[in-house]
Amino acid sequence: MVKRVALILSGCGVYDGTEIHEASAVLVHLSRAGAKVQMFAPNINQMHVVNHCEGNPTEEKRNVLQESARIARGDVSDLDKIDVAAFDAVIIPGGFGVAKNLCDWAVKGKDYTIQPQVEKLIQAFHRAGKPQGMCCISPVLAARALPGCELTVGQDKQCERWPYAQTASVLKEMGCKHVNKNVDQAHVDMKNKLVTCSAFMCNAPIHEVFDGVGVMVTELLKLA
Amino acid sequence: MVKRVALILSGCGVYDGTEIHEASAVLVHLSRAGAKVQMFAPNINQMHVVNHCEGNPTEEKRNVLQESARIARGDVSDLDKIDVAAFDAVIIPGGFGVAKNLCDWAVKGKDYTIQPQVEKLIQAFHRAGKPQGMCCISPVLAARALPGCELTVGQDKQCERWPYAQTASVLKEMGCKHVNKNVDQAHVDMKNKLVTCSAFMCNAPIHEVFDGVGVMVTELLKLA
Repeated sequence: MVKRVALILSGCGVYDGTEIHEASAVLVHLSRAGAKVQMFAPNINQMHVVNHCEGNPTEEKRNVLQESARIARGDVSDLDKIDVAAFDAVIIPGGFGVAKNLCDWAVKGKDYTIQPQVEKLIQAFHRAGKPQGMCCISPVLAARALPGCELTVGQDKQCERWPYAQTASVLKEMGCKHVNKNVDQAHVDMKNKLVTCSAFMCNAPIHEVFDGVGVMVTELLKLA
Repeated sequence: MVKRVALILSGCGVYDGTEIHEASAVLVHLSRAGAKVQMFAPNINQMHVVNHCEGNPTEEKRNVLQESARIARGDVSDLDKIDVAAFDAVIIPGGFGVAKNLCDWAVKGKDYTIQPQVEKLIQAFHRAGKPQGMCCISPVLAARALPGCELTVGQDKQCERWPYAQTASVLKEMGCKHVNKNVDQAHVDMKNKLVTCSAFMCNAPIHEVFDGVGVMVTELLKLA
């Protein structure tokens, strides 16, 4: 049976959308495994449009669905139209788009809330017993939508290799079990069917991120 | 000796910039091979900004360098500042950005001209005997800058799998030797140190495109 996987995008570019290389890695690994992929993104304005040369927000307005279509080569649908019954699993790659357009973690920190359609989606896959893959910053979505879940965003001690390690502390404060993992590993929460990996939370060469995402995809498909 | 490779981007998104997954594949394969990569893009406005959901140009203006920074995670320099002596090889991934922002193939067809800074760059690497990798539509740049070179854009007979096969005919008319190759193969023009592969000129699953780009990168590094 071909596994049908929904991929949720949040724009196009690490500082205001989906992290491009994480999304691309997910697509390559799913394709190699023979999975059938359909992409979705919310049809809303981005919180920010960031000049990626300088790292600062500009005055521009861009639409999350339209920008996500750059990664999807045009083949992406409005997240409002997703039918959970049509899929065996879902994956949400990282990037600041997750922390800006799918929730407001980027501006509110631990007091963040998730976009209602995203929260509904995660809880629907959970209720249906279907596995979910989240990498980089995306596990913060699971931390809010599935209280007490087990997850990883990499390591919980900050250093040059793990510049965002404080994220793990916040997830622990929220009551999640954070499991330290290296960039080439994924954590599987069997009870919640949640598969997470650190990806670009780690300051690692891109092929290590690519391989770690591959482990997440493999573990996810085993559960699907 | 670590190989130093320049990667030339032309925006971010298949219809008006660099094809995202080709660029990402190049970066993964170069990283795995231990190469040191530096990215460059012209600091000019894009010819078009295309709504990637609908496929149509909009009224927006975007800058090629700034949009390329989305692929480069901020780490991209103005193409005007490239020092050919500092690199062992160059790679230009495909996407309509090549046919719109690095040359005007997209609107002029076989009467196209190349951006002078891009033509200068290709001829400088050629003169220095340094290898160049080009995939998808990028080989049209070599066809103009290195008359009579050998290259591939995949197959020369149009079908569902090869929707852009007429490109090969134009390259032949221009006096190039077009060599039919499948998506998992690259062609090496030893005399010109030019390595080409079809990538998304082929309507293939993304992991086949990824692997084909990997062959191009491997062949290129052998020559560097």
